[in-house]
Amino acid sequence: MSQFLKHAVDLAKMVEGQTGVNPPVGAVVVKNGRIVGLGAHLQRGDKHAEVQALEMAQDKAKGATIYVSLEPCSHYGTTPPCVEKIIEYGISKVVYAVKDTTLMSDSDDILNEAGIEVEFSYNEEAAQLCNDFFKAKKNGKPEITVKVSCSLDGKQANDNGQSQWITNRSVKQDVFNLRHKHDAVLTGRETLIADDPQYTTRIENGKNPVKVILTRTGDIDFNLKIFSDETTPILIYTENKALTTTLPQVKIIYMEDSNISNILEDLYLRGVGKLLVEAGPTITSTFIEAKEFNKLIIYYAPKVIGGSGKYQFYSTDNVFELSEVQNFEIVNSRMLENNLKLELRKK
Amino acid sequence: MSQFLKHAVDLAKMVEGQTGVNPPVGAVVVKNGRIVGLGAHLQRGDKHAEVQALEMAQDKAKGATIYVSLEPCSHYGTTPPCVEKIIEYGISKVVYAVKDTTLMSDSDDILNEAGIEVEFSYNEEAAQLCNDFFKAKKNGKPEITVKVSCSLDGKQANDNGQSQWITNRSVKQDVFNLRHKHDAVLTGRETLIADDPQYTTRIENGKNPVKVILTRTGDIDFNLKIFSDETTPILIYTENKALTTTLPQVKIIYMEDSNISNILEDLYLRGVGKLLVEAGPTITSTFIEAKEFNKLIIYYAPKVIGGSGKYQFYSTDNVFELSEVQNFEIVNSRMLENNLKLELRKK
Repeated sequence: MSQFLKHAVDLAKMVEGQTGVNPPVGAVVVKNGRIVGLGAHLQRGDKHAEVQALEMAQDKAKGATIYVSLEPCSHYGTTPPCVEKIIEYGISKVVYAVKDTTLMSDSDDILNEAGIEVEFSYNEEAAQLCNDFFKAKKNGKPEITVKVSCSLDGKQANDNGQSQWITNRSVKQDVFNLRHKHDAVLTGRETLIADDPQYTTRIENGKNPVKVILTRTGDIDFNLKIFSDETTPILIYTENKALTTTLPQVKIIYMEDSNISNILEDLYLRGVGKLLVEAGPTITSTFIEAKEFNKLIIYYAPKVIGGSGKYQFYSTDNVFELSEVQNFEIVNSRMLENNLKLELRKK
Repeated sequence: MSQFLKHAVDLAKMVEGQTGVNPPVGAVVVKNGRIVGLGAHLQRGDKHAEVQALEMAQDKAKGATIYVSLEPCSHYGTTPPCVEKIIEYGISKVVYAVKDTTLMSDSDDILNEAGIEVEFSYNEEAAQLCNDFFKAKKNGKPEITVKVSCSLDGKQANDNGQSQWITNRSVKQDVFNLRHKHDAVLTGRETLIADDPQYTTRIENGKNPVKVILTRTGDIDFNLKIFSDETTPILIYTENKALTTTLPQVKIIYMEDSNISNILEDLYLRGVGKLLVEAGPTITSTFIEAKEFNKLIIYYAPKVIGGSGKYQFYSTDNVFELSEVQNFEIVNSRMLENNLKLELRKK
């Protein structure tokens, strides 16, 4: 792959998790072997990566090559089509790494007709940045990562519910990063009561995710720590019509049937493109059993908890044949001090 | 570390698992920068590493340096003391990597008095080869590795007991190697019935471990596959006085109280220095809860099994405070195709 296309992909990776229901995209404008413009799609509704890079390049874009991690759009969405801008700025060649499978794609033709050379140079890394986005867009549901911290024997707590802290500081830091890379973090009432967590991103200039709380009964204590931060929106899904609050950052969403699928569709419509599920065994198991997730991240602490397994991270009423259980591809395995991080992709 | 001392340690590693209640030891005799003799302790009762290397070197040992992974012995055990042989062959310098803490050690003095220079050059890798041996010797019990194959959520089977095959072929191959490196493999009646395993080492020129079966009730079916191989000894521990067999390779050991501690002491007296526990959740949990092990090896298959967790690999009647649960050091983490091997050492 051209180093410039790689730069475009790297730019896309930098903004991963801040583009909501839009994909992360990066672009680089190159003229006579020098970068004359850089861009990335920073936020939903904001300029596309190509436009950022072209505006930075200004006159220098004339006769230049633009490298984009994703095929430039040819449609009017929240912004005008990028192909028009590319033509307008006098670009002579477009190189991109991934085809946008969600659009009726005629960008190549439009650019060719304008006398611009187009090169599709497939890149796996760029594709992975977009694949979950394509899927999410098709399904109208967020890309979902389920995060689990547990013991070697798969438990999130001992039988008495004691759970803090199973994993170590490095894991905590890594989770802050995970939160930063997602639009929203979802949990349940039980976890709030057990751990009283804040679900913030304690990294420098980190972005706090929207907090999503599931509580069918609506039996919520608004004095919990999660409600103390008034700057980050909180969405509460409940089947309890009577639940209300005066807290300005809290929005209560009543649903007659608050099943996961309904909630996910609603979250996507509200702009949540990437969702992190950071909950106890009940919600975690529900998401896994319903196959409503793309990635599973497990942090294993090097200990065994034993007991009856009341808080094993995955338990189900159904018993599955081994030939039918959920399988994963191990994408990455990494030591965080003496803890282990496993990144898994649903097969 | 000197490269020759490293060679001695490497020789020790080659014979790890075939020396029973003796430690694996390697030795190299070096004269004028050339290796003139190599040796390793091959089997209990056989010559020590130093003697093998000296005999290979013959006259060339005169004035040479001998590198040994473990301090040479100065006592009469099953063989005469190595220090005598070293003096007899006219060695002028001894370099060793680990002190033998189980012996009243006067080797240095004896060698010095004979005009031989002695250098103790500590090596961590060599120490790890011996540490478990030292502990085992002190306790009069084997070094124990508990092996577990399970799903990401810590289960060895689904609730119906279905367990074959959770892990993949590479794991199987790795387990053959594990068996080869242990004197005996221990399992329980339930596993025999569920899986009908053979517990052989299907690697080229591999060594089959002694098979140890625990069955309090003595309710054993001698038609199981494990009994078809007549060349490898099988020890059955039972509290059933009436249990008998005519199979020549099977020895039935009656114990009034067949608790793990008693069994382990008996196994050690029978020459089992390294024991691999390859059993179902009940026996696995008993060993872990009793802290009767040195290493835990977990093979994780990238799947989640769910259910109620009837066959989670570690469950106990006791509930432990998180501050009191068993902790581990992660010694190694390795991918075996799409499975993960975790090597853990009890903390």
